[in-house]
Amino acid sequence: MVANTRMVVIGGDAAGMSAASRARRYRKPDDLEITAFERGHFTSFSACGIPYWAGGEVDGPDALIARTAEEHRRRGIDLRMRTEVTEIDLAGQRVRARDLEGGTDRWHGFDHLVVATGARPVRPPLDGIDAPGVYGVQTLDDGQALIDGLTGTDGRRAVVIGAGYIGVEMAEALVRRGFQVTVVDRSPQPMTTLDPDMGTLVHEAMCGMGIEVVTGAEVTGIVTGPDGRVAAVATAAKEFPADVVVLGLGVRPGTALAEAAGLPLGESGGLLTDLAMRVRGHENVWAGGDCVEVLDLVSGRTRHIALGTHANKHGQVIGTNIGGGYATFPGVVGTAVSKVCDLEIARTGLLEAQATAVGLRFVTATIESTSRAGYYPGARPMRVKMLAERGTGRLLGAQIVGREGAAKRVDVAAVALTARMTVDQMTALDLGYAPPFSPVWDPVLVAARKAAAAVRDAGA
Amino acid sequence: MVANTRMVVIGGDAAGMSAASRARRYRKPDDLEITAFERGHFTSFSACGIPYWAGGEVDGPDALIARTAEEHRRRGIDLRMRTEVTEIDLAGQRVRARDLEGGTDRWHGFDHLVVATGARPVRPPLDGIDAPGVYGVQTLDDGQALIDGLTGTDGRRAVVIGAGYIGVEMAEALVRRGFQVTVVDRSPQPMTTLDPDMGTLVHEAMCGMGIEVVTGAEVTGIVTGPDGRVAAVATAAKEFPADVVVLGLGVRPGTALAEAAGLPLGESGGLLTDLAMRVRGHENVWAGGDCVEVLDLVSGRTRHIALGTHANKHGQVIGTNIGGGYATFPGVVGTAVSKVCDLEIARTGLLEAQATAVGLRFVTATIESTSRAGYYPGARPMRVKMLAERGTGRLLGAQIVGREGAAKRVDVAAVALTARMTVDQMTALDLGYAPPFSPVWDPVLVAARKAAAAVRDAGA
Repeated sequence: MVANTRMVVIGGDAAGMSAASRARRYRKPDDLEITAFERGHFTSFSACGIPYWAGGEVDGPDALIARTAEEHRRRGIDLRMRTEVTEIDLAGQRVRARDLEGGTDRWHGFDHLVVATGARPVRPPLDGIDAPGVYGVQTLDDGQALIDGLTGTDGRRAVVIGAGYIGVEMAEALVRRGFQVTVVDRSPQPMTTLDPDMGTLVHEAMCGMGIEVVTGAEVTGIVTGPDGRVAAVATAAKEFPADVVVLGLGVRPGTALAEAAGLPLGESGGLLTDLAMRVRGHENVWAGGDCVEVLDLVSGRTRHIALGTHANKHGQVIGTNIGGGYATFPGVVGTAVSKVCDLEIARTGLLEAQATAVGLRFVTATIESTSRAGYYPGARPMRVKMLAERGTGRLLGAQIVGREGAAKRVDVAAVALTARMTVDQMTALDLGYAPPFSPVWDPVLVAARKAAAAVRDAGA
Repeated sequence: MVANTRMVVIGGDAAGMSAASRARRYRKPDDLEITAFERGHFTSFSACGIPYWAGGEVDGPDALIARTAEEHRRRGIDLRMRTEVTEIDLAGQRVRARDLEGGTDRWHGFDHLVVATGARPVRPPLDGIDAPGVYGVQTLDDGQALIDGLTGTDGRRAVVIGAGYIGVEMAEALVRRGFQVTVVDRSPQPMTTLDPDMGTLVHEAMCGMGIEVVTGAEVTGIVTGPDGRVAAVATAAKEFPADVVVLGLGVRPGTALAEAAGLPLGESGGLLTDLAMRVRGHENVWAGGDCVEVLDLVSGRTRHIALGTHANKHGQVIGTNIGGGYATFPGVVGTAVSKVCDLEIARTGLLEAQATAVGLRFVTATIESTSRAGYYPGARPMRVKMLAERGTGRLLGAQIVGREGAAKRVDVAAVALTARMTVDQMTALDLGYAPPFSPVWDPVLVAARKAAAAVRDAGA
């Protein structure tokens, strides 16, 4: 029996396999044939879990695999591992796929194409960047290589290049592994996903954990020893001895294939889609996950945000639509949470610079509070910063740095942003209160109250 | 110098003293004279903290006092402790106050009156209810008496009457003190603030903690021993031996004084106010805290909800308005969080029975998930239940029972309720995701997704 419709998925991770699984729930194999190509060794894995695997908190790589290739196949998805799509022929409605093991090259026709090619780690063209002892942390293969490297060295000096999410999470992992850790970043503060005044808190806390944080330092090269292995990380000012180097410079959309096919890309190089996750201008081409740009509901612009939770949602939207249902992905508000040791870091909405860049004028308010009633055991300090639009008082963003119980409080601001609430409206929110969970005024409400006062003081 | 305006506050706790403090920030003593009467020994204390003081987790009573009488006086508030207002003369704009220590009785004139008389614990007229060894937990005096009683007895059998918030929190406290605890309640499940299917989880968990939970049992009397002390709690079926009995039957609005003055009360006996917290029909009489009914934004009805966080907000609204500013308390969505040992319990919005009672038709969805990524250490199970309106899909309520990291997730639903979001809209919420904080789909989103499917299946 020949299926009526052929769905081809490029990329066997969160977005692609969610799309495939969801479409399969709607349509049986005799109605929809689903073929997915994955060039790597793993499918449906949690890249976000790699730092915790590296830190020894999680047993990898199996625990990080949500669904194996075999499980997908049992659900009627023809998943081809170690098979790389090398060309998209839109006019011919086909893709060319190369079996990386066997070396064969074949065209596969599609009625629906899902581009879920993910992101590529930023890897600057530095001398020595490919030397043994330098590791990326993007794939499970990377993770395994890193762990082998960490256990295989007697050295105890590690340098992490980049102090964003991946960088600080890897710093924690290396501390847990007993390394003496230096984090080097070109920015004046770690976590440029926060405003500088909040990033300072992360900087201070990391120093308190014994992590050396070197900011404002551009890496100029990786110095190798006589054995060819990494020996140090060089900046203009100084060399930092290193037995292990981890690249935590973030990622860019993996859209070379899509670009070659002429699919539309945004400013940051991610694919542009409509709300149903169709690639703009292409009725039967869909895209989701780390290779697309998403609409930022606060700034009104598209942005590239590589995050597993978005990728999963995109996949479900695509699969639902191909399956014959109806779903959209309305956009994001830019929420992100992370931690380095016991320091929790969260943000949602716009930073000051981001708000300014899109023409918004705002006031800010920053407060200190605690995670529980001050008298309750385990109450930990946190700082909350809020941005509100001048005049209207609409919430524009929130940032939280604190200890246990701090980060997920940002969700309240994320929902308020989505609902376009003013900080004054937020002041009256009925949030859960009991001494083990919150002070009588939740820290988010204290910040909203102060921001509302700042809005009034600023006038129209 | 004579102040232009006289503000009189009845009740020196959260609502009353917040109102006084806030008004004082706006208006100096030569413009506004503020007199507050408190019949008890303490002011501005956290009644919600008493179970944790009783359990030995918090050093009381000082830690539970947010601001002492002396601190209030230093801020220009004439706070009269141990002084009970015995009559409100609305026509004469005055209250009669009795000095409970000195015995004198005096009238005080007001231009603005704030009624913040709080709530009274439910104390059924049972034989033996006043016997030594039977304790309430409403005031710091109650708390001190209880702690003296717990440390003064060699017996180790405690019975808690009532299995609501106070009852389960006191059960935990008594377990911590090494007592063998029985909780007796007339309802078929503990925590009738949850739907029965969710209350069952609390029941099971409490049994797992070694707490005996006796449901469907009406207490018929307190049995005393030959020494006059409590000996057992009697129900129709059985007597439960008790060295200590704690009353955790909840509270009712303390509005006898207001009722005598002819102020308007709602169905549950709480004062009725407008959105500015003015008592309805009375231009210069204000009320807030545990003695008022608040508007439930989901049901459209007024309800009595005794909760410190609301009381504080009411006080700030009243103080702002008397001070010459403008503020309102728009209402609540019925959020409450609690815990018994490591079990976290949360709810917001309407229960099934509450939704039915106001004419709403709804679907429900219940899911199981975890507090963190399943592979991340410390991931704990939780169950989330959601109610959504049939046809529109609007969120009507959410309940969560789980372990660490469960309860405060209800805040997302609380904000969504306030914004009148549909469960379908919630599915796309951009909540914080990282493995230490959440599965890739936050449990609240998983529940919303299932509820959205239920709404579609139910049709219009």
